[in-house]
Amino acid sequence: MADVALFGAGRMGLTHAVNIAESAHGRLRYVVDPNEETAARVAARTGALVAEADRALADPDISAVVIATPTSTHAELIERAAASAKAILCEKPVDLSLDRADGAIAAAAKASVPLCVGFQRRFDPDLRALHRQVRQNRIGIVQTLRITSRDPAPPPPGYLRQSGGLFRDMMIHDLDTACWLMGARPVTVHAMGAAIADPWIADFDDVDTAVVALRFADGRICTVENTRRCVYGFEQRVELFGAEGSLTVGAAPLVRTERRTAGVLTLSASPPDARSRYAVAYREEIHHFLEVADGRATPEVDGSAGRLALALADAAERSWRTGRPVDPT
Amino acid sequence: MADVALFGAGRMGLTHAVNIAESAHGRLRYVVDPNEETAARVAARTGALVAEADRALADPDISAVVIATPTSTHAELIERAAASAKAILCEKPVDLSLDRADGAIAAAAKASVPLCVGFQRRFDPDLRALHRQVRQNRIGIVQTLRITSRDPAPPPPGYLRQSGGLFRDMMIHDLDTACWLMGARPVTVHAMGAAIADPWIADFDDVDTAVVALRFADGRICTVENTRRCVYGFEQRVELFGAEGSLTVGAAPLVRTERRTAGVLTLSASPPDARSRYAVAYREEIHHFLEVADGRATPEVDGSAGRLALALADAAERSWRTGRPVDPT
Amino acid sequence: MADVALFGAGRMGLTHAVNIAESAHGRLRYVVDPNEETAARVAARTGALVAEADRALADPDISAVVIATPTSTHAELIERAAASAKAILCEKPVDLSLDRADGAIAAAAKASVPLCVGFQRRFDPDLRALHRQVRQNRIGIVQTLRITSRDPAPPPPGYLRQSGGLFRDMMIHDLDTACWLMGARPVTVHAMGAAIADPWIADFDDVDTAVVALRFADGRICTVENTRRCVYGFEQRVELFGAEGSLTVGAAPLVRTERRTAGVLTLSASPPDARSRYAVAYREEIHHFLEVADGRATPEVDGSAGRLALALADAAERSWRTGRPVDPT
Amino acid sequence: MADVALFGAGRMGLTHAVNIAESAHGRLRYVVDPNEETAARVAARTGALVAEADRALADPDISAVVIATPTSTHAELIERAAASAKAILCEKPVDLSLDRADGAIAAAAKASVPLCVGFQRRFDPDLRALHRQVRQNRIGIVQTLRITSRDPAPPPPGYLRQSGGLFRDMMIHDLDTACWLMGARPVTVHAMGAAIADPWIADFDDVDTAVVALRFADGRICTVENTRRCVYGFEQRVELFGAEGSLTVGAAPLVRTERRTAGVLTLSASPPDARSRYAVAYREEIHHFLEVADGRATPEVDGSAGRLALALADAAERSWRTGRPVDPT
Repeated sequence: MADVALFGAGRMGLTHAVNIAESAHGRLRYVVDPNEETAARVAARTGALVAEADRALADPDISAVVIATPTSTHAELIERAAASAKAILCEKPVDLSLDRADGAIAAAAKASVPLCVGFQRRFDPDLRALHRQVRQNRIGIVQTLRITSRDPAPPPPGYLRQSGGLFRDMMIHDLDTACWLMGARPVTVHAMGAAIADPWIADFDDVDTAVVALRFADGRICTVENTRRCVYGFEQRVELFGAEGSLTVGAAPLVRTERRTAGVLTLSASPPDARSRYAVAYREEIHHFLEVADGRATPEVDGSAGRLALALADAAERSWRTGRPVDPT
Repeated sequence: MADVALFGAGRMGLTHAVNIAESAHGRLRYVVDPNEETAARVAARTGALVAEADRALADPDISAVVIATPTSTHAELIERAAASAKAILCEKPVDLSLDRADGAIAAAAKASVPLCVGFQRRFDPDLRALHRQVRQNRIGIVQTLRITSRDPAPPPPGYLRQSGGLFRDMMIHDLDTACWLMGARPVTVHAMGAAIADPWIADFDDVDTAVVALRFADGRICTVENTRRCVYGFEQRVELFGAEGSLTVGAAPLVRTERRTAGVLTLSASPPDARSRYAVAYREEIHHFLEVADGRATPEVDGSAGRLALALADAAERSWRTGRPVDPT
Repeated sequence: MADVALFGAGRMGLTHAVNIAESAHGRLRYVVDPNEETAARVAARTGALVAEADRALADPDISAVVIATPTSTHAELIERAAASAKAILCEKPVDLSLDRADGAIAAAAKASVPLCVGFQRRFDPDLRALHRQVRQNRIGIVQTLRITSRDPAPPPPGYLRQSGGLFRDMMIHDLDTACWLMGARPVTVHAMGAAIADPWIADFDDVDTAVVALRFADGRICTVENTRRCVYGFEQRVELFGAEGSLTVGAAPLVRTERRTAGVLTLSASPPDARSRYAVAYREEIHHFLEVADGRATPEVDGSAGRLALALADAAERSWRTGRPVDPT
Repeated sequence: MADVALFGAGRMGLTHAVNIAESAHGRLRYVVDPNEETAARVAARTGALVAEADRALADPDISAVVIATPTSTHAELIERAAASAKAILCEKPVDLSLDRADGAIAAAAKASVPLCVGFQRRFDPDLRALHRQVRQNRIGIVQTLRITSRDPAPPPPGYLRQSGGLFRDMMIHDLDTACWLMGARPVTVHAMGAAIADPWIADFDDVDTAVVALRFADGRICTVENTRRCVYGFEQRVELFGAEGSLTVGAAPLVRTERRTAGVLTLSASPPDARSRYAVAYREEIHHFLEVADGRATPEVDGSAGRLALALADAAERSWRTGRPVDPT
């Protein structure tokens, strides 16, 4: 049973708070957020106390810290939590600067504190089934992987201004998924991108449409496609093709009614929705983290995974800016 | 804003309680249930008081009553609520005896109290879309209707003993749906049924598999198929076929992963689940009832609909027992 | 290698002619048809000779006869072919009169001549897969079977006048399929029917919409639904439901393009087409018949199967006319 | 009505021969092929004469020539046909050398002879529907296009030796489709490829797996993925994503039977097959060519389209070899 302090009571923080509160293996004790109202609301829903960071970190009963604050504060909080010997779950990315991220990761390592990074998709049952089937060689040698992620609508300007750009705030998930499913890191990254459906995004020096190709040392190829807007809702598709078959997650929408008339079959499909898409994954992620905090497991997604995805996002952005393939190693 | 007393704090009662509590148009004030523990739990979750029936009915602030008790108590509660001038939402069936049901319905009518019967499917957005499209003549003259309902597993013996049998406790929903979608009442009912997958159900003088055919005066035909057990989960399918096309609800499972290998495409599909299937319908049903209680709407599913479905269930059972078609009018 | 004479050079006859001509196990030698032009065309496409019935039957090289003439001539041709000791493949139904059919079947039996009846669906690879999986108990005890057949458009009046009605000319296929898949003959037949989409069909004392329920001795139930018209094309669906799962053939249309926009997924589906639907089945049926003619196989669909389906069609029609269930035995 | 000479009586030539023979707008007069047996077989099936090239080209009645010979002979035959003033349909690619192709195309232009290049997909009804819907702005501004082509099995070594490699013999179709659907030519081509499932293909200095990204001047991105082998059969998928929705061709396999058991839905899907996939397209292509030959239409896919696709294939191969993006203009 781990006693947990939560830093950041926004949307992501709330999700973690509820999952900790409902878990049999953890207790949410403190909620830390400069916005008192937000902090109070999350605390009320979970039976935790609103507290200052110092108090939460100084409490020796607290063995675990969840960091769901804005990115710019992640590294420092990791370092402080490491200094206080807490197990850490930090939302992605660790930092927008690879150097700063390296510093924080090193601090956790030096303090021998387990550090988990919040790539929740690794805990999604469907993607885990895919991963397992690939490992079991169910589709033979993998040749290509295709990951498609589409958000329903672009984030607001205020977020875009400090997000680090599509490659770091959105595609970073896909880059982590790619390395995980391929069981390797790519040797070449090539990116194309533009602001097409929402041209105003170009004013933020960012794109709304991007395609990144990753080449692995043994020749395997992964393509990642991201768009910031999708009229038919949140879409996440992962397609593996191999010598003996293919595996796909996320191809089918949730069909509700069908109408057949001459030559046309019209399906009314539910718009998929991000929150419910990964609800189980978020729960499983917290479950895993509480086990890590209790010393019963080691991080499935550790600092080096967080660093790799960030380095690939950096490489993708560099490739997009220069028009040239980039060696991310 | 209607103040509501709930009779019956079981699974169905809890669903209604939560929906009333979350509605902006109603307040759950009393929970009445002989099982104090159950009543207390529902009251705690919704801010209502546990009370005796007398107190709840005597409170002049209470304008609406929801009846989710065992069937044998429905008729009396309807009569008492009518006598207290409360608007009533009663779970189906009104009673197992058509005469007794008629008495209760008459009591509500005499007291000029609105009586809604709990056929929640009428409020399901998908089925409403179907209904609307048929009315708009989107598939031309309807020729046939097919309704399939399968439960994941049979109810326990204790329930079977007093349920009134498959035709009255399960198929009654389909019979109501049939009349609603066809916009008419059938003139002939013919039933076949047996206990096949669970032969022990025959000991309860009941079936686990039934097919009922309904003939309407203009020749249109409806087939209803029910099975008590379905290994792939709860299934509800409604298929309308007409001169200009067809309309279907419920054909597709929720697909998660797909695997293609030589000649076979394997889909992992989520087992559908009854509670979530009609979650929206239950909310909309309560929303409608609160409007009725406030005098802003008249019952969409009133006593006569409750009586008709029960009469058809009776006819179906009689047909099953005698092997002969039955005129339900 | 069987030498074959074909009686009847219409659409069905042509299909058989081409399949025989392309088979390595048979030779089409004679085409017999009162319409000389039609006969000549089929003969030209297959290298056969146009001949009179007498000559074809008298030729001792001819070991097999395919009868694809109008139904009213079937029985006599079976008797003549039996008298000439030819193996026989006769299109369904053997005759519109059960007595006359019995006479012809008896004649073939007395002459020890193999008689195959043209229920080609028994040779369809998909339905055979279904049949095999049921036999292998892949879905546990079967509880219900549902067969849906829809033709794209009703036959012309000239055909309707002598077809024997929907139950004998169209549903007879489904009735044969039902007995085959259930591995038994039903003990009760109940029919409902009307002329709805094409009311003029009532002038022929016939229906365009029919639902027949079959009850088997062990309680299993089969429902057959037929419509004469279907705007989205030929439809054939077979659905088996059992204690361990379900098996379906024909649920999916051939999807061509899909368009996803907000909330709607529109599929353009090819209208299915009867000729291509059973092309393989017709080929396999002839292949089987040529083996029967060569003495290497016994009829899979023999006179008794032809008789049973006809008796069930009779029973269905009688039930439709009287409104009462009929015992077909 | 055009009189046609066919050069090349292989698989592709036979397809064209049959389509010409069955067309009401053309007559196949000569079949030219050094392999006499092959030529004779095609001639017999179509009522044409086997002839030498000289005779066919010298016949003034011949107004049209179809070239379906090995690639190395295309350019010379185009030049000879142009010199004889025949309308030309030449299979892709025009030549493996861009310079040589330019020479042949110029010869046709100089002789004012219409030259069609055999990208049959442009005549596929489904892809035409896609093209039309994009032009009608049905999915808003296009952001990305994805084309997937998979062959069931790699070609034999003899073919690989002189095919020009995957980019020129297989992907060239996709590159043409990309330019057609995007209505523009790309400004950057970036390729990745390897021999993974069939490593022996590397001995031919070729790949069995390739991903090419195309960037268009306005930022739109197209990804093409090719694999030489696919255990579940021939696959062709085209996916357009835009600001208002998406359009897809080829996502669905032809489902035959479905089996639902606890948690799994197993579909048996027909292996798709290249010949039938584009049967209609080949017929439409010949139909169009015969109209061109009769002067009633101008080539939809002319020499410049053939040149562009070849130039893009060259660029893709160069990018694959150098690891650098290539400007194809």
